[in-house]
Amino acid sequence: MTDSQSIAGPIETTDDLDGDRLREYCGVFGVFDFEDAAAITALGLHALQHRGQEAAGIVTYDAGGRFHAERRLGLVGDHFSKESTIKRLPGSAAIGHVRYATTGETILRNVQPLFAELNTGGFAVAHNGNLTNAQALRRDLIKEGSIFQSTSDTEVILHLVARSRKPQLIDRFIEALRAIEGAYSLVALTNKKLIGARDPLGIRPLVIGELDGKYILASETCALDIIGARFVRDVKNGEIVIISESGIESIEPFPARAARPCIFEFIYFARPDSLVQGRPVYEVRKAMGRELAREQNIAADVVVPVPDSGVPAAIGYSRESGIPFELGIIRNHYVGRTFIQPTQSVREVGVRMKHSANRCVVEGKRVILIDDSIVRGTTSVKIVQMMRDAGATEVHFLISSPPITHPDYYGIDTPQKEKLLAATHSLEEMRAYIGCDSLSFLSVDGIYRAMGFDGRDKTHPQFTDHCFTGDYPTSLTDLVEENRAQLSLLAEAS
Amino acid sequence: MTDSQSIAGPIETTDDLDGDRLREYCGVFGVFDFEDAAAITALGLHALQHRGQEAAGIVTYDAGGRFHAERRLGLVGDHFSKESTIKRLPGSAAIGHVRYATTGETILRNVQPLFAELNTGGFAVAHNGNLTNAQALRRDLIKEGSIFQSTSDTEVILHLVARSRKPQLIDRFIEALRAIEGAYSLVALTNKKLIGARDPLGIRPLVIGELDGKYILASETCALDIIGARFVRDVKNGEIVIISESGIESIEPFPARAARPCIFEFIYFARPDSLVQGRPVYEVRKAMGRELAREQNIAADVVVPVPDSGVPAAIGYSRESGIPFELGIIRNHYVGRTFIQPTQSVREVGVRMKHSANRCVVEGKRVILIDDSIVRGTTSVKIVQMMRDAGATEVHFLISSPPITHPDYYGIDTPQKEKLLAATHSLEEMRAYIGCDSLSFLSVDGIYRAMGFDGRDKTHPQFTDHCFTGDYPTSLTDLVEENRAQLSLLAEAS
Amino acid sequence: MTDSQSIAGPIETTDDLDGDRLREYCGVFGVFDFEDAAAITALGLHALQHRGQEAAGIVTYDAGGRFHAERRLGLVGDHFSKESTIKRLPGSAAIGHVRYATTGETILRNVQPLFAELNTGGFAVAHNGNLTNAQALRRDLIKEGSIFQSTSDTEVILHLVARSRKPQLIDRFIEALRAIEGAYSLVALTNKKLIGARDPLGIRPLVIGELDGKYILASETCALDIIGARFVRDVKNGEIVIISESGIESIEPFPARAARPCIFEFIYFARPDSLVQGRPVYEVRKAMGRELAREQNIAADVVVPVPDSGVPAAIGYSRESGIPFELGIIRNHYVGRTFIQPTQSVREVGVRMKHSANRCVVEGKRVILIDDSIVRGTTSVKIVQMMRDAGATEVHFLISSPPITHPDYYGIDTPQKEKLLAATHSLEEMRAYIGCDSLSFLSVDGIYRAMGFDGRDKTHPQFTDHCFTGDYPTSLTDLVEENRAQLSLLAEAS
Amino acid sequence: MTDSQSIAGPIETTDDLDGDRLREYCGVFGVFDFEDAAAITALGLHALQHRGQEAAGIVTYDAGGRFHAERRLGLVGDHFSKESTIKRLPGSAAIGHVRYATTGETILRNVQPLFAELNTGGFAVAHNGNLTNAQALRRDLIKEGSIFQSTSDTEVILHLVARSRKPQLIDRFIEALRAIEGAYSLVALTNKKLIGARDPLGIRPLVIGELDGKYILASETCALDIIGARFVRDVKNGEIVIISESGIESIEPFPARAARPCIFEFIYFARPDSLVQGRPVYEVRKAMGRELAREQNIAADVVVPVPDSGVPAAIGYSRESGIPFELGIIRNHYVGRTFIQPTQSVREVGVRMKHSANRCVVEGKRVILIDDSIVRGTTSVKIVQMMRDAGATEVHFLISSPPITHPDYYGIDTPQKEKLLAATHSLEEMRAYIGCDSLSFLSVDGIYRAMGFDGRDKTHPQFTDHCFTGDYPTSLTDLVEENRAQLSLLAEAS
Repeated sequence: MTDSQSIAGPIETTDDLDGDRLREYCGVFGVFDFEDAAAITALGLHALQHRGQEAAGIVTYDAGGRFHAERRLGLVGDHFSKESTIKRLPGSAAIGHVRYATTGETILRNVQPLFAELNTGGFAVAHNGNLTNAQALRRDLIKEGSIFQSTSDTEVILHLVARSRKPQLIDRFIEALRAIEGAYSLVALTNKKLIGARDPLGIRPLVIGELDGKYILASETCALDIIGARFVRDVKNGEIVIISESGIESIEPFPARAARPCIFEFIYFARPDSLVQGRPVYEVRKAMGRELAREQNIAADVVVPVPDSGVPAAIGYSRESGIPFELGIIRNHYVGRTFIQPTQSVREVGVRMKHSANRCVVEGKRVILIDDSIVRGTTSVKIVQMMRDAGATEVHFLISSPPITHPDYYGIDTPQKEKLLAATHSLEEMRAYIGCDSLSFLSVDGIYRAMGFDGRDKTHPQFTDHCFTGDYPTSLTDLVEENRAQLSLLAEAS
Repeated sequence: MTDSQSIAGPIETTDDLDGDRLREYCGVFGVFDFEDAAAITALGLHALQHRGQEAAGIVTYDAGGRFHAERRLGLVGDHFSKESTIKRLPGSAAIGHVRYATTGETILRNVQPLFAELNTGGFAVAHNGNLTNAQALRRDLIKEGSIFQSTSDTEVILHLVARSRKPQLIDRFIEALRAIEGAYSLVALTNKKLIGARDPLGIRPLVIGELDGKYILASETCALDIIGARFVRDVKNGEIVIISESGIESIEPFPARAARPCIFEFIYFARPDSLVQGRPVYEVRKAMGRELAREQNIAADVVVPVPDSGVPAAIGYSRESGIPFELGIIRNHYVGRTFIQPTQSVREVGVRMKHSANRCVVEGKRVILIDDSIVRGTTSVKIVQMMRDAGATEVHFLISSPPITHPDYYGIDTPQKEKLLAATHSLEEMRAYIGCDSLSFLSVDGIYRAMGFDGRDKTHPQFTDHCFTGDYPTSLTDLVEENRAQLSLLAEAS
Repeated sequence: MTDSQSIAGPIETTDDLDGDRLREYCGVFGVFDFEDAAAITALGLHALQHRGQEAAGIVTYDAGGRFHAERRLGLVGDHFSKESTIKRLPGSAAIGHVRYATTGETILRNVQPLFAELNTGGFAVAHNGNLTNAQALRRDLIKEGSIFQSTSDTEVILHLVARSRKPQLIDRFIEALRAIEGAYSLVALTNKKLIGARDPLGIRPLVIGELDGKYILASETCALDIIGARFVRDVKNGEIVIISESGIESIEPFPARAARPCIFEFIYFARPDSLVQGRPVYEVRKAMGRELAREQNIAADVVVPVPDSGVPAAIGYSRESGIPFELGIIRNHYVGRTFIQPTQSVREVGVRMKHSANRCVVEGKRVILIDDSIVRGTTSVKIVQMMRDAGATEVHFLISSPPITHPDYYGIDTPQKEKLLAATHSLEEMRAYIGCDSLSFLSVDGIYRAMGFDGRDKTHPQFTDHCFTGDYPTSLTDLVEENRAQLSLLAEAS
Repeated sequence: MTDSQSIAGPIETTDDLDGDRLREYCGVFGVFDFEDAAAITALGLHALQHRGQEAAGIVTYDAGGRFHAERRLGLVGDHFSKESTIKRLPGSAAIGHVRYATTGETILRNVQPLFAELNTGGFAVAHNGNLTNAQALRRDLIKEGSIFQSTSDTEVILHLVARSRKPQLIDRFIEALRAIEGAYSLVALTNKKLIGARDPLGIRPLVIGELDGKYILASETCALDIIGARFVRDVKNGEIVIISESGIESIEPFPARAARPCIFEFIYFARPDSLVQGRPVYEVRKAMGRELAREQNIAADVVVPVPDSGVPAAIGYSRESGIPFELGIIRNHYVGRTFIQPTQSVREVGVRMKHSANRCVVEGKRVILIDDSIVRGTTSVKIVQMMRDAGATEVHFLISSPPITHPDYYGIDTPQKEKLLAATHSLEEMRAYIGCDSLSFLSVDGIYRAMGFDGRDKTHPQFTDHCFTGDYPTSLTDLVEENRAQLSLLAEAS
């Protein structure tokens, strides 16, 4: 069903350099036993805003025994910076969520955290990741008489918990986790507990923080930093942590397996000042640039990053190669919208709305341009042209990760395979399309070296890296079933 | 759970003459096989706006096999007059709903029609009325694992239908109706049918209309008039009508009983130009005024209606008594908000924001003031004072219905019993409180005479009239259970 | 220059029964030495809202020696009901203005009161009326180097005052009044005085009120009633009243002439509960209905007013003729917008959005329909058709004023002469166009009789009545100059 | 007069690192004979957005002989990216303006370009700079009967032109320029010409661009780059350029003087990719960092810029000193608002809302922190503390310009002298207040060296640099008159 309870403003589709990035679906945050739980959660979500800009929500539980929810389309700061909103969220325990969503389904019913009144009491849950058997489970639940209110796979988890016959909430929760496949980092809230859970491979991140002896859960450490909390450790793959008045407890209900976190957190998603799996993201990105310089040997005058995500790799490349680092592309901080393109004389304004060439460091120079990845390649074409327009004599385009050849099903918004440039073009075809003098990617082993390994362990890969290798770490139940794309909430109407 | 997905503007609480009315909860509308189903439904809901000003919603079903929903806080014209909104509601079948809601629960999740994807296909339902065993049913459903998204009793019906094991939707629907108690006029939509249903006593209204051989369901005939449709008949008490490509079909699954429609539709709720149970409401109200003049015999110079609801009774009174009808109170059409009350000199502005005395017909006159009912009496005090301030020498306050002594549980928003003026005051106490020279109510038998009967049939009352008599026509399951008022969605959280 | 500093919402153009009324341009209000001057002015303007719904403004002067202004597009209650707005308007003296404006020029710069810092101090002015030599004066002022910020003729007055070489503000003001022609009721504010002025013929209304020994100026007495003030008297034609700490002072700088107030205030503009020139408007309108009944003698079953402006005349007609008064047309209070017209089956919804026939009093009846005036006649067609659709056997359309044959230039928004139905059609042609069985207007003498005269004094007409007679009471300087319609602010650009 | 025609949202006062910058008042742009003049101007203003974020306006002139204006509070992209807005601005000539304004006066009347209908035709003007004798001129004009609508000093220019008795517009304009003192870069539009003018010292910038043989005026070259136009030359100090159908013409009505452009354009205001007075700003800033490294010799492990304005200087410093450049502070792109500060446990969030320390490059390191200037020093305290919190062992704070000891009166928003940290503290007191281990500023001669000179020419300084030296280049008429601060538009009210 289409449903437009409340209209969201159009997602900005500015023709900028970020238009060709992969996008993370979500970020989660949770606190327990904090005096201003909602205000702290708003700050935490703000620090996680890069993980989802489309909607945000907070659920709190107050001592009076009530849950409170606020869910809004827009940025965290648009709504949750207001005292009036925070006042509607009393209580000392809270979970929150930021999300990015696929087109057409951005409706308030899908904004998390989701909440249900269960026989065991209220239960709220927020999810980062994507289930690969959600459609199959949903069909079974509808047959049993469950009513779905959203198209979110997270609601499947909620119904599984509601349907479970176990008397204890935590056992119901485990039963639900056993039924689902795919990637998930979850934070959940009951009237007594804050719960965190990570899928058996630990694909999506989730960390534990501490402030004044009280615990926090968050997708990234940058959300701990903003409130001055200390990083304790990552939630382990397959681990459930339960935070209550008795402190923190850990359950590992699944058979032990090696973790296999998503490598894209390091390449693009995570904020550079975060630690992911204990590694500083900024240093990893510099190392990728360094490895790239070791793999390539290109004579050039300047190293120019595509702002902002290419900056650490460009610094690493410059340091390793000795070629000077320069801001050859300037970002305009005031953009947000697409202006009317004048018809006369003016060449397509495109990326110049948000970025401009810094002619004084580009003109007459051989330029090494560094970016973190290429998805469709559409903006790469423009950025290379921008360098040429500014007078670059050569443009060498270097990517600090391998070619993306396979889509993701674990919570990253990738286009269909046929839209991935590297899935359908040879290296030379890509170079010709982009219009650069040379095009190079970091090798798969190179990226593992940047992470501190000798290379990729082919039998037991250390990361979830199917976007580069096609090696999906879990079964893809929904995908296997035919006509997956056609499946809609209402497809069975009869 | 409190939930503020989207903020509604504060309900206007202007201190006006309408502030002391009872309020209807809802109005419903449905069409099948109309080219512009959503646009027609918007018009129908607009004509029913007096039955609920807080929110409105429309669900359509299109030939492509999809349901579409738009639900908004505010007036019908605020949102559903826009082409952009109507375009998001394609299809030739539609149901719609307007609602008035009690404080604190005006959230989008409660706005109807509700929709669920069932095993048998999509199902949407809109409800006018109130169930008297909704809390008990809700508790049972939650125990079974159902997840409720709203606090609306209508969702209980949806879950009962979803849970039913009958293979046919219509049998599931009947099974659900058998489980519920109270008052309901329902319109429902599947991918093949428009369904209307009225509770066994026919407490709330529902009529069938026809235009070009196609059928319409609506709470009142005024919604037929706006689209130029013909009134066919009332849906009978206990009847289910099924409108499909094969035409209209009627089912009466309940044992035959005499209808007992709510008498307040005639007194205040229905629009004066509507037919309710076949009777023209305007003429009934004039007859109430006429009966009042027959019961009372008061010497006076002018008959002044409290606008606008007192006008027909005042015309009837004037005609019967021969005392001239005058507009002694003028309505300001531009009000909507409470202004700042100046501190100095200015007597409390109160009702003058929205109404003013027409001094030229009041000054020096003995005034008969006619209103349709008294609930708390708060605005009666002000209107009587307004007449005195304008120079009336005597103010006789006459009410064209009996004293309201009991609250309603069938979809009318009545205050608690202790707030009903007539429940706690004698006639003389009421007169003294209101400050008029005399106060009179129409008798219970008088109101039945205005309806065309000799009087009230004590053994088989012709109307639902418990507000005057305390004679509730159904069991009140939820009320009987203790601490009903305390029951909240989350009360059992443990 | 077109100028869209701030966007106004589109003026509602609902196809309703009010769509064919003449419109008043403005209402004014002023207080001096009141503790909450802005709050009181907001109330006064609210009571005058029927005189202008497009914009409102208030200027105050505070003891600290500063003027404060708030001017907004929209209704008074949209902005000036808010405490935050009123708080930005401190001071014990205030003037306010509501306005209706012609298309395309509704910009904030035109919203009054206007303000200028003069050599003698701050000066604010608000105007109801229209100058007939504003264009000529404007051209002269621009030649002298004056810069106009608005297209309002009121700004001409401001510049004339600014340019005057007289040392005293009041003498500058009189000098300005001597230069202008046309109709004006002005309220003005300096740091020491509240000033009211009415043109030599007293075309537009202005009254003096009193509360606790302090004075108020207002367009109508209904604005006194809302704050509980006492009506003192009308400002006389050609009179200037000066309210200051020393009380109230009167100046009559023009040669004595007989007043000639605009007769349309009685027919349509003024609120029925107002006194205009000392006459109760409601009673005058009833008298117009009574005169109409005396002039006509039509056999009929019911007298039905076109709501709401036709109601008093219909009561008068019913009383005089003995034919029962019935609400044959019901007004829907919830309209404001034009809905999408469905294509299929549904006859043009038009006026039914805002009004509906009350079939039970119309069906099978000979109907006398009473309205106050006909301008273009477009909605008359619809309302007559509505009566026929509801089953009226005959429809006799009676107008409680004479045919409008000439446009106005004194502050009433009339269409161009060729759009006035009565200017281009004979009575029978009008009847045929409107589609009624008979059409009658009150005679010119009849309307004077309703005002208490024997008839119109042809040599010294008691009222400004050129819309019926073509007898314009002042010279029309701007009109006489060629190509008046073409004249724009920028026409001389070279 | 306070005036709140239209409410602006509160200026964001986020406690961020930019909170302590000086602010430019304005940017201007103009085109002549371009097909989409308004759309091009919107792009140009967008590129100049860093020069003023509070309001924007465009005036166009169309072939039909009309001027059109749109002026709005907010960013250029908020309004002028919309097709509907651009469509209201037809014509092939346009001027535009972005502004930053001081508190309390941000009202639409002050938003430029200003427009007046003069005897010679329409005249629009936009101004970057500040007049130092505006108050004196305003008083004289009011005495003559001029009415001011804004508090903007630009309106003084408009009235001077309107009052001039010269027959030709251009002579009136020159007469007006002769009367004014201070800094101004003006663009003006008549029905035949686009005019640019720069004050006799050329304090504020203004450049000429060309595209397809047509001319553009803009505050900075970055506004030429966005539309793909070519930089022709700077408008000279004291020059008036007149662009018409006959091409471009230059007038120099003032006695020849050496230019003395504002040095702050190089330090902070201009975009790094702009050329100012022919110099690439990015390279000048790198040179300031290089000079700083030459003047200081500090042992450290990393060079960290305060983002974003400290980046070029930090690159220059790193290059000269050999100490690695690292992004030690990460900017959060999603901030805009101040969140609620939680009471419990959480240390003041302050700058962490918008920036966070990148612990991995700071922890255990001796940090050289580079910023472009210190105004009040309030955020410097926080940024140094942020470095310490992240584990820096030493924090050396280096400023790539001299201490600011004097306020500006030429269009830069500086706080009063007593709020300037360097005006009231010794270097050691500043260091202690900021809490760094050492504090150093670039010398005055150092900054001139970075500009390519041997040092400051004390007799004929090459730049306007009074903020560092107290050497104001023009007389300060208004300031000299007593109680300048008290002077308000209404101060003379009597």
